[in-house]
Amino acid sequence: MNNDKVIKIGIVGATGYTGIELLRLLATHPNAQVIVITSREYTGIRVDSLFPALRGFYDHHFVEPKTKHLYKCDVVFFATPPGVAQEAIPDILNKGIKVIDLSADFRIRDAALWEKWYGKTHICPELLKQSVYGLPEINRQHIKNASLIACPGCYPTSVLLGFKPLLENGLVDTNNLIANVASGVSGAGREANLDNLLAETSDSYKAYSAEGHKHLPEIEQGLKDIAGSSVQLTFVPHLLPIIRGIHSTLYATLKVKGADLQKIYEECYKNESFIDILPSGSHPQTRAVKGTNTCRISVFCPRDGDKVVVLVVEDNLVKGASGQAIQNMNILFGLPENTALDNPALLP
Amino acid sequence: MNNDKVIKIGIVGATGYTGIELLRLLATHPNAQVIVITSREYTGIRVDSLFPALRGFYDHHFVEPKTKHLYKCDVVFFATPPGVAQEAIPDILNKGIKVIDLSADFRIRDAALWEKWYGKTHICPELLKQSVYGLPEINRQHIKNASLIACPGCYPTSVLLGFKPLLENGLVDTNNLIANVASGVSGAGREANLDNLLAETSDSYKAYSAEGHKHLPEIEQGLKDIAGSSVQLTFVPHLLPIIRGIHSTLYATLKVKGADLQKIYEECYKNESFIDILPSGSHPQTRAVKGTNTCRISVFCPRDGDKVVVLVVEDNLVKGASGQAIQNMNILFGLPENTALDNPALLP
Amino acid sequence: MNNDKVIKIGIVGATGYTGIELLRLLATHPNAQVIVITSREYTGIRVDSLFPALRGFYDHHFVEPKTKHLYKCDVVFFATPPGVAQEAIPDILNKGIKVIDLSADFRIRDAALWEKWYGKTHICPELLKQSVYGLPEINRQHIKNASLIACPGCYPTSVLLGFKPLLENGLVDTNNLIANVASGVSGAGREANLDNLLAETSDSYKAYSAEGHKHLPEIEQGLKDIAGSSVQLTFVPHLLPIIRGIHSTLYATLKVKGADLQKIYEECYKNESFIDILPSGSHPQTRAVKGTNTCRISVFCPRDGDKVVVLVVEDNLVKGASGQAIQNMNILFGLPENTALDNPALLP
Amino acid sequence: MNNDKVIKIGIVGATGYTGIELLRLLATHPNAQVIVITSREYTGIRVDSLFPALRGFYDHHFVEPKTKHLYKCDVVFFATPPGVAQEAIPDILNKGIKVIDLSADFRIRDAALWEKWYGKTHICPELLKQSVYGLPEINRQHIKNASLIACPGCYPTSVLLGFKPLLENGLVDTNNLIANVASGVSGAGREANLDNLLAETSDSYKAYSAEGHKHLPEIEQGLKDIAGSSVQLTFVPHLLPIIRGIHSTLYATLKVKGADLQKIYEECYKNESFIDILPSGSHPQTRAVKGTNTCRISVFCPRDGDKVVVLVVEDNLVKGASGQAIQNMNILFGLPENTALDNPALLP
Repeated sequence: MNNDKVIKIGIVGATGYTGIELLRLLATHPNAQVIVITSREYTGIRVDSLFPALRGFYDHHFVEPKTKHLYKCDVVFFATPPGVAQEAIPDILNKGIKVIDLSADFRIRDAALWEKWYGKTHICPELLKQSVYGLPEINRQHIKNASLIACPGCYPTSVLLGFKPLLENGLVDTNNLIANVASGVSGAGREANLDNLLAETSDSYKAYSAEGHKHLPEIEQGLKDIAGSSVQLTFVPHLLPIIRGIHSTLYATLKVKGADLQKIYEECYKNESFIDILPSGSHPQTRAVKGTNTCRISVFCPRDGDKVVVLVVEDNLVKGASGQAIQNMNILFGLPENTALDNPALLP
Repeated sequence: MNNDKVIKIGIVGATGYTGIELLRLLATHPNAQVIVITSREYTGIRVDSLFPALRGFYDHHFVEPKTKHLYKCDVVFFATPPGVAQEAIPDILNKGIKVIDLSADFRIRDAALWEKWYGKTHICPELLKQSVYGLPEINRQHIKNASLIACPGCYPTSVLLGFKPLLENGLVDTNNLIANVASGVSGAGREANLDNLLAETSDSYKAYSAEGHKHLPEIEQGLKDIAGSSVQLTFVPHLLPIIRGIHSTLYATLKVKGADLQKIYEECYKNESFIDILPSGSHPQTRAVKGTNTCRISVFCPRDGDKVVVLVVEDNLVKGASGQAIQNMNILFGLPENTALDNPALLP
Repeated sequence: MNNDKVIKIGIVGATGYTGIELLRLLATHPNAQVIVITSREYTGIRVDSLFPALRGFYDHHFVEPKTKHLYKCDVVFFATPPGVAQEAIPDILNKGIKVIDLSADFRIRDAALWEKWYGKTHICPELLKQSVYGLPEINRQHIKNASLIACPGCYPTSVLLGFKPLLENGLVDTNNLIANVASGVSGAGREANLDNLLAETSDSYKAYSAEGHKHLPEIEQGLKDIAGSSVQLTFVPHLLPIIRGIHSTLYATLKVKGADLQKIYEECYKNESFIDILPSGSHPQTRAVKGTNTCRISVFCPRDGDKVVVLVVEDNLVKGASGQAIQNMNILFGLPENTALDNPALLP
Repeated sequence: MNNDKVIKIGIVGATGYTGIELLRLLATHPNAQVIVITSREYTGIRVDSLFPALRGFYDHHFVEPKTKHLYKCDVVFFATPPGVAQEAIPDILNKGIKVIDLSADFRIRDAALWEKWYGKTHICPELLKQSVYGLPEINRQHIKNASLIACPGCYPTSVLLGFKPLLENGLVDTNNLIANVASGVSGAGREANLDNLLAETSDSYKAYSAEGHKHLPEIEQGLKDIAGSSVQLTFVPHLLPIIRGIHSTLYATLKVKGADLQKIYEECYKNESFIDILPSGSHPQTRAVKGTNTCRISVFCPRDGDKVVVLVVEDNLVKGASGQAIQNMNILFGLPENTALDNPALLP
């Protein structure tokens, strides 16, 4: 650890919710020096005039995404829509600059699969091999030496962390997995979308994409990696009338009854500072992780039957996106993993 | 039908949310004449001083629950906590008065099972045989001639209606059913409970009673009745930060792939005015049934696999409680089933 | 009254919140027959495919706004953005068809003033004289014989009804009036606007347009009409994180202390079925009028000083827009004023 | 400044929202060592079993309020209901321990006035003289040497900071002040109160205590101190369906028109790190201060008339309570005033 290390940071696409959240979290990071903040739409505007909550923390103006100022960075975060990071990343990697990509561009190793779900041709499939999936609790060793980190999606983070102890220990039928997940509306991004108006979304609840959501191939890839075998997942996302928070309710069928699941979960994550296995019988709530990088998990075996129920909560913008991105940066630069990520939730 | 029929009505326990909702719905019922409104706690108080939204509709005062005025009624609704209705109902039935019980007292036919889940001794188990389970879409013929109707719980209504077409047609493995359900906080009742404060519940989401919820035996009894065989249900309820609305996401495993589920669902409910099967590919939202007695259902078979996903929404206070109670009353008194239940949802 | 009268109705611009609300309310109106529903954007689409809450109530498709089918109507409602109604109305009036305009086009009698605040040239200022301001509690006699009714804005309805008893009786200094008003987000319309996303608006509160809001000239015109003298109003609107509801907190300075304000308010509105003066000491809440055409009002004189505080609540989409429009229609066609507007609020 | 100074801290009454918020904020304070956390109700229980959001930050158990462990503290915070702090404080002060009282017990200098509004006899009125009103932006010099600090109420903080520049400069008529304020429900405390259930409060808005609220005498005392003359305030609080946040809309009448109010406000607070005067024409929102000790203020003079409108936002639990308490502690112990209070708002 080197407390006075300074990391020069660029953020590409800083006007979406994951971009703003990076700025919020980096504002209190002792080693972070944000030097470039880009936005196509708001070039020339002061960042804090668009986001008054950042007044006093940043005096930057947004600059064009294709700026040479990025070359002065030690690391560049991409918080961009699908397909955008692909265009800019090769050039930046060539300069020896680290890249942490919060978008979906480099998460799926199979380019054809990516192209099917995202409806675009992948520009630099050759980088997919080099890309490291940035879920530290599963992939920490590879992250340390990565040059390109693909941060996991918000749903995949939650589902993979929840199923990991079961799959790793071969406890459940991998062809009968169910993930019933619910996300706050910030997961849909900061876009003028009729469906996400308060008057349309508040005081209501619905499932969406029940026929297939684009996070599904990413999750199945991750589950296969952990299980070392094929998996079949039924994945149904829902929209919660809250701002932040993902709650996953996972269902699996035990191969053999009677395992001490509580102990297995505690053991699996005993060295992880961001994974908190709740005491037996407790139920996690999304508010208890609001604004934090913590993932809280409970495990149940109702009526001691053959079904296991796992409950997982995370803040979709922190552990599900920008906090995890900073956790990756901390690992990459040899800092304590919880630097700038060590605060309690804002509750109530 | 007799449009000028007058039904004299008593409501016992009218200060909880299902009681208030009865008053709201009966205010526009052309045949209803509410003559007695009881409340232990508020005896002597004007109803509309406690509930200003009812100003102009009721000039009643709350009276003691054990009032002889109930004897003048044609029907008495019980909207009381578990165990209360049992005490009063035998006497009222003896006077030849119909009873529609919104509480859990007469829903489970097995008294021992009831006693296990509700932690009390059942006072009049002999009435359980006579009691008719008031889910018209399953039990309409028995309701017509009932003297004691046990209105289903809010979760059971939604889960039973959602699984019915699958079970009736023997399409799924009955030992692998999952009901992932979510309810607005009005489902927890109008009680001063720290956990249901806006500051504790809003902008958050959680599961509860994952180890076993008291609606589980009621649902399993109903599923068995439909399936004609044993069933195994995993049932996980969640608390939504909304006032009204239940959303059930049901999962089952098909015995044989390839059935036209959309058609099967439409066929099953084609004569039901309160069940609306949405067009293929649509997802129901709780707000689209807010304030109505309608249940909207969608059915999916993701990636044409062996899992079926059913989405069901209802207003927990209407189709899940008071609206269904009035639907039962309409059947009982030979009125059109949708009398006073024929309005669109309050949306937005 | 003529219960079997049928009114043929057209709705122009039925995809905004006031248009949808007209459809919701007219669905239960015994004399209403909606024959034309227009939408530029959604021409050809079934109305209930866009608004599933209306399934079972309308089988119409949206048609082009400039349709001759409007000529078959007895009355046409305009629920359009500023400037749109002006273009179509002259032709419709010429056919002898009644027009009820929910937009701002004909509310302000001074065309120059309208043009200043709405930033457009008024197309048919000659109709301004003929237009009748549709606030029945102030203008009922003129409404009966009107051909063109300009429905008041949501804020003006609330502020005018709240100040009326004070101004009519000459009790307060008309140059020191303050209206601190707060509206739910449905008041901003059904438009894809970043600022009204749940993630931007929920769990927050703010004032807006403190330097001058476009409802100000309409309110000042109405206050002058009532007071018969010049008025000075400070008007500050706020955005509430709720869907429906306007709450106005009005402040004025008494010329003479000691008047029995409670009695004056009750007397003023004693014959009005949609105005409910609450008992002394009560505070109205927006939820207690949700979905209704009722306006609830309380009046206070804190510490018996010279300031009077008036609290007014209404549902901005009902009494503040579509309900009031139907109230006007009922008056125009000789129906009981509360036809289809006679239900209790949806509470909780 | 002494960065390695350790302050031993006791918190009396740590289970209300201001107590929990102290724990949240102190968790990241580099000089704070919380050694005693009391609760009458939860004695013996682990703090983080009651508040899971604090898991990993505190391993304390709640102890009895009357514990001698408090004597080991350098400072004791009281986060107790009215009347409780009075009983315990004299003993603690006698031991030479500093006290920061977040309750209302020592805010009002006139014991008779306190007794009138709080309905109790004051136990130690002699301490009122010694007590220092803990609003640093007004009273910083006295705070430095205080032994007993009375932290201002949430509403008073907002109203006093908003009016200060106007009163200090003698710009407005002090007998015609209006404060229209709105608070999130956490302001009502963590108590099982029917009125604050999500099902009662959400999707609604109301004024309360329009006839006189108990913060009124505290505000008037503060305004008089600033103005140096008598004041007359009309104060109407409202309940917002949000968790945190106070928004004050202040109205005053200018004695002379034409002052550069923007400049006066900026000048008044130019050295204050927690007061942010927004650019001219901007409106503050409560969410932009969520979780922070910042107070954001805008000033308007609508239509260049004689009325000034001031908009003030704060987080009622931070600048309106616990954050301000820690700001006071920082001053008292010679630390940088923003220690542990230097993070951006949680937005979105």
